[in-house]
Amino acid sequence: MKKIHLDPNTILHPHPVLLVGTYGVDGKPNLMNAAWGGICCSVPPCVAVSLREATLTYHNILHSQAFTVGIPSRKFVEVADYLGIVSGRDYDKFKDAGLTELKSENVNAPIAAEFPYSLECRLYQHHKLGLHTVFIGEILGVLADEAVLSDKGLPDIEKVQAILYGGFGSNHYFAIGEKLGQAFSVGKKIKNGSDKA
Amino acid sequence: MKKIHLDPNTILHPHPVLLVGTYGVDGKPNLMNAAWGGICCSVPPCVAVSLREATLTYHNILHSQAFTVGIPSRKFVEVADYLGIVSGRDYDKFKDAGLTELKSENVNAPIAAEFPYSLECRLYQHHKLGLHTVFIGEILGVLADEAVLSDKGLPDIEKVQAILYGGFGSNHYFAIGEKLGQAFSVGKKIKNGSDKA
Repeated sequence: MKKIHLDPNTILHPHPVLLVGTYGVDGKPNLMNAAWGGICCSVPPCVAVSLREATLTYHNILHSQAFTVGIPSRKFVEVADYLGIVSGRDYDKFKDAGLTELKSENVNAPIAAEFPYSLECRLYQHHKLGLHTVFIGEILGVLADEAVLSDKGLPDIEKVQAILYGGFGSNHYFAIGEKLGQAFSVGKKIKNGSDKA
Repeated sequence: MKKIHLDPNTILHPHPVLLVGTYGVDGKPNLMNAAWGGICCSVPPCVAVSLREATLTYHNILHSQAFTVGIPSRKFVEVADYLGIVSGRDYDKFKDAGLTELKSENVNAPIAAEFPYSLECRLYQHHKLGLHTVFIGEILGVLADEAVLSDKGLPDIEKVQAILYGGFGSNHYFAIGEKLGQAFSVGKKIKNGSDKA
């Protein structure tokens, strides 16, 4: 297999599609699409989202000290993309996308009722990395559609019909594909076949 | 749609499958499977990985000030899972998984030659969040199989045959599914249909 050395690049597969809900200084609800983020701590439960200072959401989070992270199902691909194309400075994105604003009961941030579930976060830490700043939110609650819960009472990726962003190199959204194996299980055959080092 | 309030939980879909390569204090190469991380800054290009202090990789990164992030293709589902089941304190994971160690030319960390591409990172920042610490690596290079590059010269998610981790609620690995739409494009019809707020 021929190996190629590439220049430094922000390439990684896959990215989630994170729809970040905030209130503006004027109380106006907003949503933006962020691909760079994910869960980052178990205790306390935290989620990270990286944002440029140029975005309205960056300033909204610093002002309100809170945000939500909505996870879209596949029927919201166009809505999710729209939320990443325009700025809340110029557009009423809830209205344009036909989304219903709910105020989080846990934090000072809005939720789109139509998304299958949303994480409700208070700003816990933020660190300037360079052009992007990573915002760490402590998850204080999760608002979910009962219909997407597994038998363990948590949102199930297949019931959610979650989507992903393919990132640079293939600039598309994708569905979740077929099951390939159970985590913390399919690797055991390698473990059992090896001697302790 | 009936909404349910759930307790705080580290639920999010999807997670990537990040195979983190490090050298130990004794020079022994190791790989671990981390689901909590992703790209977090464009300039400088950075990737984040969250780790508990209990892991060997946590201590290896602090010692070597470097790590790699390998992205597996679907044929490495069992290998990836194995790398998350056992500790490098007890097992020689490269040997057990049949992986070939390459030393990164950019940083003091190992790469598995069989993975379609790997990010080569120097430790840039790290922040203790709670039980997990987030390690931010500046990406100094990318080593990729020529066969997985798009016509733009970057790894393509479909050629990579990347996989994802479904997280809690559905504890499985999944393939990437079908294309749902082009990013920064399919949402334009909403933009074009709306008036400026």
